Amino acid sequence: MSAPSPPTDCPLCRETGGHLVFQAPHWRLIRADEPNFPAFYRLIWQAHVAEFSDLPPPQRQACMEAVCAVEQVLRDALQPTKINVASLGNVVPHLHWHVIARFDWDSHFPNPVWGQAVRQLPSPAVQRLAIPLAELDQRLAHRLQAMPAQPAP
Amino acid sequence: MSAPSPPTDCPLCRETGGHLVFQAPHWRLIRADEPNFPAFYRLIWQAHVAEFSDLPPPQRQACMEAVCAVEQVLRDALQPTKINVASLGNVVPHLHWHVIARFDWDSHFPNPVWGQAVRQLPSPAVQRLAIPLAELDQRLAHRLQAMPAQPAP
Repeated sequence: MSAPSPPTDCPLCRETGGHLVFQAPHWRLIRADEPNFPAFYRLIWQAHVAEFSDLPPPQRQACMEAVCAVEQVLRDALQPTKINVASLGNVVPHLHWHVIARFDWDSHFPNPVWGQAVRQLPSPAVQRLAIPLAELDQRLAHRLQAMPAQPAP
Repeated sequence: MSAPSPPTDCPLCRETGGHLVFQAPHWRLIRADEPNFPAFYRLIWQAHVAEFSDLPPPQRQACMEAVCAVEQVLRDALQPTKINVASLGNVVPHLHWHVIARFDWDSHFPNPVWGQAVRQLPSPAVQRLAIPLAELDQRLAHRLQAMPAQPAP
């Protein structure tokens, strides 16, 4: 039996979904284009599954170790106030984890990025990050490249 | 050296944080009191850590396997449109995972529960669940009780 075809109407099956930072065999990391939250990454599972619990245990573990590695790089590089991690998928039910560095000065803090803004920034948020996004992307790719091999599908 | 004392100003160190469904050695599951989202649970790590990546790998794995078990019970019992999982902690930086059954008829769907409501319900949301909350809590406790022993801290 061949694997089922991915649904043609799923944007995360059709497109990268953002600026590609790293491609692993079973997932990819992209940077979202969110000016208010410049350090906003998504770890997108390569195969079309809707829920985290659709993955078998070794793949769940590989997925979350990758999410955790992204979190660690963001913490080390940016010293954010908080990391926000979420798998929602109400609009695009293809498993992806948002990993977002949050700062007490950002437009929505302490609200979730999906909540109400509480302040306006005098200058673009990206200018307040400790390092440029290109360097952050590089550090992430370097860290993810060094991860142990992923389990077979 | 003794373990550091938990901060006295952390509500999740001081209080249960909701209706206690199951207490494991290293985490607890509570049901939140959210009338719009009656199947809204939180897996709260027992020790005071802020970020997921503050846990060592075996504890990260135990944590996410418990989150996944909650997700599986909600899916089996309620057939929700989607499960939402998130660790934010901007207001209470003590590691906790929101696990929320979402329905295409709920007040905010497809928005996140932290976003804008898009409809008003004619009757309490809890009445539309396939089983009563007390039975859902029981199924969750039963499933979590059956999980393998957690790793040592």
